[in-house]
Amino acid sequence: MHAPRNTWYVAAWSSELKDKPMARTLLGESVLLMRLPGGEAVALGNRCPHRFAPLNLGTLVDDAIQCAYHGLRFDRSGACVHRPGASGGLAAARVPAWRLAERHQLLWIWMGEQSLADPALIPDLHWLDDERRARCMGNLLHSKADYLLNIDNLMDLSHVEFVHGGSLGSPGMSNGEVKTTEMPGRIDVNRWIPGIEAPPAIGAAMGYSGRVDHWLDMSWRSPSNLVLRIGLCAPGAGRGAGREAIALHLLTPETEHSCHYFWANTRDFNVDRPELIEVERARISQAFELEDKPLIEACQRMMGGAEFWSLRPVLLASDGGGVLVRRNIDQLVASESGSVGT
Amino acid sequence: MHAPRNTWYVAAWSSELKDKPMARTLLGESVLLMRLPGGEAVALGNRCPHRFAPLNLGTLVDDAIQCAYHGLRFDRSGACVHRPGASGGLAAARVPAWRLAERHQLLWIWMGEQSLADPALIPDLHWLDDERRARCMGNLLHSKADYLLNIDNLMDLSHVEFVHGGSLGSPGMSNGEVKTTEMPGRIDVNRWIPGIEAPPAIGAAMGYSGRVDHWLDMSWRSPSNLVLRIGLCAPGAGRGAGREAIALHLLTPETEHSCHYFWANTRDFNVDRPELIEVERARISQAFELEDKPLIEACQRMMGGAEFWSLRPVLLASDGGGVLVRRNIDQLVASESGSVGT
Amino acid sequence: MHAPRNTWYVAAWSSELKDKPMARTLLGESVLLMRLPGGEAVALGNRCPHRFAPLNLGTLVDDAIQCAYHGLRFDRSGACVHRPGASGGLAAARVPAWRLAERHQLLWIWMGEQSLADPALIPDLHWLDDERRARCMGNLLHSKADYLLNIDNLMDLSHVEFVHGGSLGSPGMSNGEVKTTEMPGRIDVNRWIPGIEAPPAIGAAMGYSGRVDHWLDMSWRSPSNLVLRIGLCAPGAGRGAGREAIALHLLTPETEHSCHYFWANTRDFNVDRPELIEVERARISQAFELEDKPLIEACQRMMGGAEFWSLRPVLLASDGGGVLVRRNIDQLVASESGSVGT
Repeated sequence: MHAPRNTWYVAAWSSELKDKPMARTLLGESVLLMRLPGGEAVALGNRCPHRFAPLNLGTLVDDAIQCAYHGLRFDRSGACVHRPGASGGLAAARVPAWRLAERHQLLWIWMGEQSLADPALIPDLHWLDDERRARCMGNLLHSKADYLLNIDNLMDLSHVEFVHGGSLGSPGMSNGEVKTTEMPGRIDVNRWIPGIEAPPAIGAAMGYSGRVDHWLDMSWRSPSNLVLRIGLCAPGAGRGAGREAIALHLLTPETEHSCHYFWANTRDFNVDRPELIEVERARISQAFELEDKPLIEACQRMMGGAEFWSLRPVLLASDGGGVLVRRNIDQLVASESGSVGT
Repeated sequence: MHAPRNTWYVAAWSSELKDKPMARTLLGESVLLMRLPGGEAVALGNRCPHRFAPLNLGTLVDDAIQCAYHGLRFDRSGACVHRPGASGGLAAARVPAWRLAERHQLLWIWMGEQSLADPALIPDLHWLDDERRARCMGNLLHSKADYLLNIDNLMDLSHVEFVHGGSLGSPGMSNGEVKTTEMPGRIDVNRWIPGIEAPPAIGAAMGYSGRVDHWLDMSWRSPSNLVLRIGLCAPGAGRGAGREAIALHLLTPETEHSCHYFWANTRDFNVDRPELIEVERARISQAFELEDKPLIEACQRMMGGAEFWSLRPVLLASDGGGVLVRRNIDQLVASESGSVGT
Repeated sequence: MHAPRNTWYVAAWSSELKDKPMARTLLGESVLLMRLPGGEAVALGNRCPHRFAPLNLGTLVDDAIQCAYHGLRFDRSGACVHRPGASGGLAAARVPAWRLAERHQLLWIWMGEQSLADPALIPDLHWLDDERRARCMGNLLHSKADYLLNIDNLMDLSHVEFVHGGSLGSPGMSNGEVKTTEMPGRIDVNRWIPGIEAPPAIGAAMGYSGRVDHWLDMSWRSPSNLVLRIGLCAPGAGRGAGREAIALHLLTPETEHSCHYFWANTRDFNVDRPELIEVERARISQAFELEDKPLIEACQRMMGGAEFWSLRPVLLASDGGGVLVRRNIDQLVASESGSVGT
């Protein structure tokens, strides 16, 4: 798995985790997610150390998960605190416990060295908490492609014209001026497209038609969180006079060749029309599920299990941002190798 | 395949093998099972040595199986006794022939060194032949888990309370006194639970309610045959005054990670009510198919292909019997390595 | 993949390739097949060298295929002739281009050293072009078995009696005199069966019943094209006085363990009854799909991934032709090893 571990990944939307424990494979490991009676969410290794039953099949007893097979119970620290037919727990029986933080309507997990897990390092996605914004949240798709192929897709929006021509895109979107800026743990690829015909779907959603100035600003936040600002304004009016949506694309590796793709869209206009949120969800889901996902998965299959660089991909100017991200990831993985506990 | 070969395994229920030849994978090999015209059952390698067609697709001609592809015929010894367009057979064409013995309503196969195949070594399961007993026989389930994981399950009945709480089990079953006894080729784990509330399903089947003394005596017979005595009696009345069912669990490895699970239940009470047998079959099938099987298969998947001990399973007191079985199997396999022909 | 590359293989029936580009895996590689606006068919590597999208998902723009992902365009030579947002193409971006020839209603591909691709080497199958013949063409089945197992099947027609006893065959077909002749790149196995009862299905199709002389002449043309002449005549009348159908079996490796099987049947009698062609298609399809294919695929599975000779197949007299073919293939593959570019 080519992914750093000393970092926060999205494990789930807060809203996904209710009373019932759930399992999700993250960074190649089966993770148990559950809420304690007080509501706090915790993450444990999902494999019982006794006979390897998946703990998510068990039940919560007080503040411990009881294995469905022989009844061992594990608390939030991963310690076995009860075994049937004996008093107390069993020190030898432990499951990993990973730091889990609930922030921005999301559950974030740190699967590397636990002492380094600092919630201050969680990326700032405050738009998800802002009740003055219309928020289309809670969306998740499963991609049978490496998270890096999905990041490539997002960092190079020149694909929009070809992949989403009939939905999100329009001719001319691949033109315009692109400016790439690298900062520590952040790469911005900003695209400014003045004086084009408003992309039909976006135009309709934002209330613009005819000529517009259009911007698409993608910002990668290490390791796999992307913030996209999509905006339209009247030609020459300036961005401040226009409308802008802020979309979030949050990727978590599942296996070497698959990932979880959490996404949301937020905006500060038409907030008083909540019915639009479901329209938006349907429109974007359709583009992601029916246009991006099958294509990116097909690319993964065409790679036949080979490593990305070993296939000597041709580089285009529009790959600049994506390649910078891959180099950042490579450095993070290299810096951890040999020095990271799980 | 971690399984001894110089031993008898159940290949099929006698009732499964009728006129038509059948194939079953046993110990990793495709085995042809068929009855000769006189009714005798034989077992041959299922792969034609000519172009590798599965012989079970062929037809019986006299007392030989005729390959469905080019018509070679093989007799019970595995010799090719006929080839089309020529007189006689072909000495170079042979398939393996394995000793097959029909006993206790079952077909037993010996897939190791054939000169060692002594029917006297077949475990005594005479209850299956006893017409004075009600016999729920002919049951077979396919487990996508190693036979040893299934044996673990059976040797540690503390799982009953958790896995079968709503069906076969009841709270308190995991208590009681457990006595483990090792004999050559046999390990007994006897559980005596005095003065508990009768387990609902078993109590109903046996005609007991309220307080009872309860016993669960599991006896492993090498390599993978288990005899379970389940009994209830009035508190203090003694086992002789109660009722007891004798259940058989007979496991045969299919592949490294799957097995065939033959089971039966027999009893010497309510014998005059044959309609109860189907009730029993439904009740037990449901517990095995819907409760044990998915859980054990989930354990297998959670092991991710790793060898059992390499995952350092935590041992509980209740694992004593299961661990003794594994050690017995390990010794049998080790003693055969390098010295066994197939 | 045990198959020569410096040779022509059937990629598709001409009729399969219409306006829309299509992908087919040939010799282990995903191949894009498409027709240029003028109708000429070309074959390119199907993997875009930029981000590995399958080009067959793209669209033809003028005489170049435009990738569905980011819009790169490749012409018939495999050169990138256009990239969005820039003028002209990109020299570094190339896909393989393979010689494709359209002949005998088929598209033939040469996937070895391109400078050796001589259309004169395409086998002569002129019957497919002969409008005076009734031609049942355009048939394709997918076999989950190695092409060599399918050739074995065809070169040894003694299987007909057993596999097609209820359809194409009849008892006695495995008798008769077989004569095998080896020529450069060609092996003929001719079977002459005088004075048998006419095989029911073939007899009905050809208008014969009762006693006949029957011939089945199979001719392998390197590497995997087979021409079968099936004939009936009155006993002693001689072949010239009888009727003969000419069937074509054209195999192309897909993967190590699967192939594409193109077939046709042609005849010069009953040509004025076109409705018979669909009857013929149904009858032959049924025999191939329901009788040969499942059996040959079962053989492949029974081989468990092992190489053919490593399983030490027993050889019968009827295997003579098939073994000669395998030796020819072995020599071709050996002569290419280390010396062939793709």
